[in-house]
Amino acid sequence: MSLGDVHRSAKAALLSQGFNEIHAQAIANTVTAAERDECRHHGLFRLPFYMNGLLSGQASGEAEPSLVELTPSVIKVDAKYSFSPLALERGDQPLADKAKEHGIAVLAVTNALNVAALWPEVERLADRGLVGFAFVAASPYVAPAGGTKPLFGTNPMAFAWPRHDKPPVVFDQASSASARGEIQLRLRDGKMLPEGWAIGPDGRPTTDPAQALAGAQLPFGGFKGSNIAMMVELLAGPLVGDVLSFEAGERDKANTGAPCGGELIIAIDPVRCVENGDRIAQLKHSEMLFSRMLEQDGARLPSDRRYEARERTAKEGVKVPVSLHDRIQAYIAGKRVDERNDYEGDHLTHSKPMMAHQPA
Amino acid sequence: MSLGDVHRSAKAALLSQGFNEIHAQAIANTVTAAERDECRHHGLFRLPFYMNGLLSGQASGEAEPSLVELTPSVIKVDAKYSFSPLALERGDQPLADKAKEHGIAVLAVTNALNVAALWPEVERLADRGLVGFAFVAASPYVAPAGGTKPLFGTNPMAFAWPRHDKPPVVFDQASSASARGEIQLRLRDGKMLPEGWAIGPDGRPTTDPAQALAGAQLPFGGFKGSNIAMMVELLAGPLVGDVLSFEAGERDKANTGAPCGGELIIAIDPVRCVENGDRIAQLKHSEMLFSRMLEQDGARLPSDRRYEARERTAKEGVKVPVSLHDRIQAYIAGKRVDERNDYEGDHLTHSKPMMAHQPA
Repeated sequence: MSLGDVHRSAKAALLSQGFNEIHAQAIANTVTAAERDECRHHGLFRLPFYMNGLLSGQASGEAEPSLVELTPSVIKVDAKYSFSPLALERGDQPLADKAKEHGIAVLAVTNALNVAALWPEVERLADRGLVGFAFVAASPYVAPAGGTKPLFGTNPMAFAWPRHDKPPVVFDQASSASARGEIQLRLRDGKMLPEGWAIGPDGRPTTDPAQALAGAQLPFGGFKGSNIAMMVELLAGPLVGDVLSFEAGERDKANTGAPCGGELIIAIDPVRCVENGDRIAQLKHSEMLFSRMLEQDGARLPSDRRYEARERTAKEGVKVPVSLHDRIQAYIAGKRVDERNDYEGDHLTHSKPMMAHQPA
Repeated sequence: MSLGDVHRSAKAALLSQGFNEIHAQAIANTVTAAERDECRHHGLFRLPFYMNGLLSGQASGEAEPSLVELTPSVIKVDAKYSFSPLALERGDQPLADKAKEHGIAVLAVTNALNVAALWPEVERLADRGLVGFAFVAASPYVAPAGGTKPLFGTNPMAFAWPRHDKPPVVFDQASSASARGEIQLRLRDGKMLPEGWAIGPDGRPTTDPAQALAGAQLPFGGFKGSNIAMMVELLAGPLVGDVLSFEAGERDKANTGAPCGGELIIAIDPVRCVENGDRIAQLKHSEMLFSRMLEQDGARLPSDRRYEARERTAKEGVKVPVSLHDRIQAYIAGKRVDERNDYEGDHLTHSKPMMAHQPA
């Protein structure tokens, strides 16, 4: 499919299933950006999660996010139980304006269902010369270091640094050792896990994917990664006045895999952090680090694979599995596809039928 | 030694070696806080690093840090090539005031020699109800993930979350897999390293501490830790208009192990990030996370060991090695101790004599 086709199909499917025009547009933008960068887990593959959220009655396809300026440097957007892309779009420009005015600013998003990647919101800040951070919590899958039971979400954080004449350097990484979907794929394929990914229900290390899914995932990098996970949990939850991962998990009664909660975004304008700032000179300085990284065989900048994919898909389009393509056609035709999908995915835990179907 | 004795000795030694009253007081506060919390690598053990910085002529013992308000939310403190404790003290209250006023604020410290831990600056923000972040780069010891040569500093970041009626939850962690001192200790003791700590000069994984010190340390947690290291490097360097780790290393011509550079501190007031904020309710919410962590056998809060030590040392004082005690007495007696010390320590790389001794 061409990227134009991806967007048209995604939007048509979302509209047909009950999202209004602005939500369908925002979600289709997000899904298409993921396909464009070959982040397929966050692309068309995610459409069933959006649909399931709506069908379960847990997500609104129509709520208009409300924006409040809490201080001259803090903006809050209440997504009102809709999916995050529209809320993030609404907060984006005001956040950038405030960061440029004051040097640093916060966007606190609440009551948002989030099944998307975080790099789009920090990349678009960095496209305008800002440094961006994003933090979001999720369903409780990850045990704290030393612990035995799931408590933290896979809790991603994203960071973007602007470049003068190139796309920004961006990373977006879970604080768990692996994505949940990587464990599920190995379960499906009858493969064992690498060590360090998970513990079983008995709290002991396991390389058995079934035991891992019944037990808990582990943070990346031992107690240091666990600290990062805890930090993300606090920033995306209590700091913005929204839930912790275990609370989000308890609230997702329909088990949609689309948890509802908060997201914290911070934007900093580098030129406001120095005296007599010269933006280009400041960014040139940071290029010295990137050059030294790239001089080393084997090292790379964290976002380069996405940008390579972006060039490729602009010319060649993307490949979509037939089963997914068929499902999208069914959505567009207005069919209620009310089974949990069985594709691989970070948030997918069950393939059982939905428990609670309510009209959207 | 009692903590009072630690402070008196440290301050007397610093004064005798050429620090002025206010710098000696600030550094003695920092050293004593580290001894109090049994973070011995940042306690009296660090005095030689302060002295070497001064003796080399690279550090000033008298410079008055200058504070500028760059925006209503950004404060810059130029330490003017003095050690960081005084600069951090000077920026602390203005940063807290701005964070409480606007919800979020930045303290950019530049031209500071930093051989201290980061938890004190974030802990004191959190003692006043603020969330604190701190980032500092250092000498280039750590290879980027996939790379083969040292580039990043051990690049610590610290984070503090306030609690209502308890000391804050704080972590302060290097983005390297291990402290440099842990490798040096194993070299001294003829022990091998765990896998994953380092690569040799040939770029291949090594468990030989000599090869590791000649090669490069590795980030914690693979490419994710490497991303954190890169982020810290950008925040503590180009963002605040100061040097990258490799530049700091090149500038430390006397090889004092006391690199000079920037530090970024961010403070957020949680109650300004929610509507109709109720600080106590917000902090109570975060206690739910801490309770669930502590319910799990084996999990702990990252700062609890320090707080336990704090209770213990208040009653029992601290133990100081005789060799270190003797060295402090020599400092107090005004002797120039111009050999690099050979204690274990994060920043210690050489025990050769100082290269450039100039009067302070």
